[in-house]
Amino acid sequence: MRARADLVLRDIGQLLTMDGSGASGMGLVNNAVLCVKDGKVLWAGPAGELDSQVTVSDTTEFVSAGGGVVTPGFVDSHTHPIFGATRQEEFAMRAAGADYREIAAAGGGILNSVRKTRAASEDVLENNMKHHLAIMLSGGTTTVEVKSGYGLDLETELRCLEVAGRVAEEVPQTIVPTFMGAHEVPEEFAGKPDEYIDHLIDVVNPAVKKQGIAEFVDIFCEKGVFTPEQAERYLSASAKQGFSLKIHADEFFDTGGTAVAVRTGAVSADHLLSISDDNISLIADSSTVATLLPGTALFLNKPFPPGRKLLDAGATVAVATDFNPGSCFCDSMPLVVSLAVCQCGFTVEEALVSSTVNGAAALGLSERKGRIVSGYDADFVVWNCDDFRTIPYHLGNPDVAVVYCAGLKVYST
Amino acid sequence: MRARADLVLRDIGQLLTMDGSGASGMGLVNNAVLCVKDGKVLWAGPAGELDSQVTVSDTTEFVSAGGGVVTPGFVDSHTHPIFGATRQEEFAMRAAGADYREIAAAGGGILNSVRKTRAASEDVLENNMKHHLAIMLSGGTTTVEVKSGYGLDLETELRCLEVAGRVAEEVPQTIVPTFMGAHEVPEEFAGKPDEYIDHLIDVVNPAVKKQGIAEFVDIFCEKGVFTPEQAERYLSASAKQGFSLKIHADEFFDTGGTAVAVRTGAVSADHLLSISDDNISLIADSSTVATLLPGTALFLNKPFPPGRKLLDAGATVAVATDFNPGSCFCDSMPLVVSLAVCQCGFTVEEALVSSTVNGAAALGLSERKGRIVSGYDADFVVWNCDDFRTIPYHLGNPDVAVVYCAGLKVYST
Repeated sequence: MRARADLVLRDIGQLLTMDGSGASGMGLVNNAVLCVKDGKVLWAGPAGELDSQVTVSDTTEFVSAGGGVVTPGFVDSHTHPIFGATRQEEFAMRAAGADYREIAAAGGGILNSVRKTRAASEDVLENNMKHHLAIMLSGGTTTVEVKSGYGLDLETELRCLEVAGRVAEEVPQTIVPTFMGAHEVPEEFAGKPDEYIDHLIDVVNPAVKKQGIAEFVDIFCEKGVFTPEQAERYLSASAKQGFSLKIHADEFFDTGGTAVAVRTGAVSADHLLSISDDNISLIADSSTVATLLPGTALFLNKPFPPGRKLLDAGATVAVATDFNPGSCFCDSMPLVVSLAVCQCGFTVEEALVSSTVNGAAALGLSERKGRIVSGYDADFVVWNCDDFRTIPYHLGNPDVAVVYCAGLKVYST
Repeated sequence: MRARADLVLRDIGQLLTMDGSGASGMGLVNNAVLCVKDGKVLWAGPAGELDSQVTVSDTTEFVSAGGGVVTPGFVDSHTHPIFGATRQEEFAMRAAGADYREIAAAGGGILNSVRKTRAASEDVLENNMKHHLAIMLSGGTTTVEVKSGYGLDLETELRCLEVAGRVAEEVPQTIVPTFMGAHEVPEEFAGKPDEYIDHLIDVVNPAVKKQGIAEFVDIFCEKGVFTPEQAERYLSASAKQGFSLKIHADEFFDTGGTAVAVRTGAVSADHLLSISDDNISLIADSSTVATLLPGTALFLNKPFPPGRKLLDAGATVAVATDFNPGSCFCDSMPLVVSLAVCQCGFTVEEALVSSTVNGAAALGLSERKGRIVSGYDADFVVWNCDDFRTIPYHLGNPDVAVVYCAGLKVYST
């Protein structure tokens, strides 16, 4: 017996199922319908096949997409939204010519966020996070990875992850928590990064694991922060403790963080502005997702990441916002998709795949998110345009009409 | 006797009057009020001085800005919003590696818009324009220059400017119309640009002037379009006919369009991606505004315009969107302001001045727009943030709370 739909979204001009078929795997279906049951995609395909695939009843809700485009919701696989305060004063200093040393000397940088986050109440942390998750939703983002890493002590890191867990219960999006105690060396361990890594492995990781409040760990492997050796030691130990792995790699310098990612089996290596050609080959031949964050390049006026090279090498490439108060105060996946096309050499199709299917892969959610196929979570966006190419083309003001999470309408313009 | 206010906006955390005082002339007042009468700014200043400056009555409306920032509305001094159809297919071709010759061979480019605009009904032209003006309003843009230039024949150019005039009556923003018959050489004059210039001067300009439907004329001075000599001939003749002047100058090649602008007394020279150091000095010593369009550089993956050099040389620099269906489908002034800071070397203060005061100067509206001082049009934005530096810092999602045009609330989130 055919299953009964709770919701039928019809009059879809272009449906991007992302099922792997067709150009760039976008699975484009013209004149389509999308059926939802119990928060999952029941069936999606050509309108003419609806009757043979799905049963409807008196309680089935029919909604028109108005001839518009429907895509999976964006999967933003790299954000830092748990912070005590914004840092627009550092942005203004940088604009006026200050470099990162001068900003640090004035009390800026990650440790600025650490001070403000340690001092912040849970309400402040929660409100900041919810505020930006709501903005992300308005841009079509339905799954969000969130990193801790502005606490850098046991108490604050746990508090931040607990806040993330509570917020996850209240927002419509799916939240994937990442513990990033290894975001920077805290003042208490100044000059002793190896001792801090030991402390993370021996004390903080087990406490996080015990509470079950993070799926991933992440580490900032960069000149002046953690070396590739420290990163590998931390990630290997974390894997043994049962965490999935991420790494901030080869952002400002080609330190070899990508190679660490591949050796440790990290799910993703992120940033890669300075990745070498050798490491491009290495990651392309691995199962690690290359996650690019072009908003950060724009924000910091750095060269954009080599998207085309990674794509041509055959890497699985995701794009994400890197939303954070220091180096990229950008919570717009639509802008990131435009940047991927305009500045990183992606085709329109590749940019849309990278922000959905591949974002899901970067979170280990390939079986649940990023596609509109039977059994997947019914997270999707109805766009106020009839051509998917308009999504990145309309720079700065996304044509989002309606957003659904788990089959429920959670935002509309 | 002191004048009586219609509206008092109080609880303004930071008011940017742009009155020329203080850092970069932003005229920052903390804890301020803004009083409106008959659509004009009656008085704006420190809250403590309200009683001594303004009379209120029973009919005075009091509104709280919630401690937020208040700025003048953005003045977008360069847009092409009168078109028959969007061109996302060319965007996708360019993303896939096609250059402008291949796009032209496939029927793309400005002449594509010309075909579609000639074929479009007035309703289509009107709806496209209104749709994007509404989006612009949501980003805080309260004055918009609109160019014709996708008709390139007498009938269509007049129709487009008439549409602009009708739309101007219906939208809250102030619309400044520009006749840009010299946007490209139309097919009817292929290979005969001088004859087309003659035709514009002898036939079309006088018809536009007679109807009083354009304040400015503009010409695209660029390799393969119009030479500096043709531009100078056209602009000089147009000035004698009573038009104010604009020019698309030194965008892709340093052809000397800026020098033409200065010699002909153009109000603005726009684009300037490829301006030479000599021409930077020239425009800095002139009364011509240098209008930069960083969205176009982003969209086309070209080097960003040399904002810092122009500012250091002492030029009056404006920023605008260049919104158009071909080279920059960006209708967001907040994004442009972020790009000015992140990619063109502006300080936060300079970017805010360039998008308000200097945008007004680029439209000959320095006495009416771009400032919040007595007698100016009461066009302003209440921001959902308490620090003006947050405006460009929040990349991709502007914190607009409420927009006023002529003292009336015309948009709120």
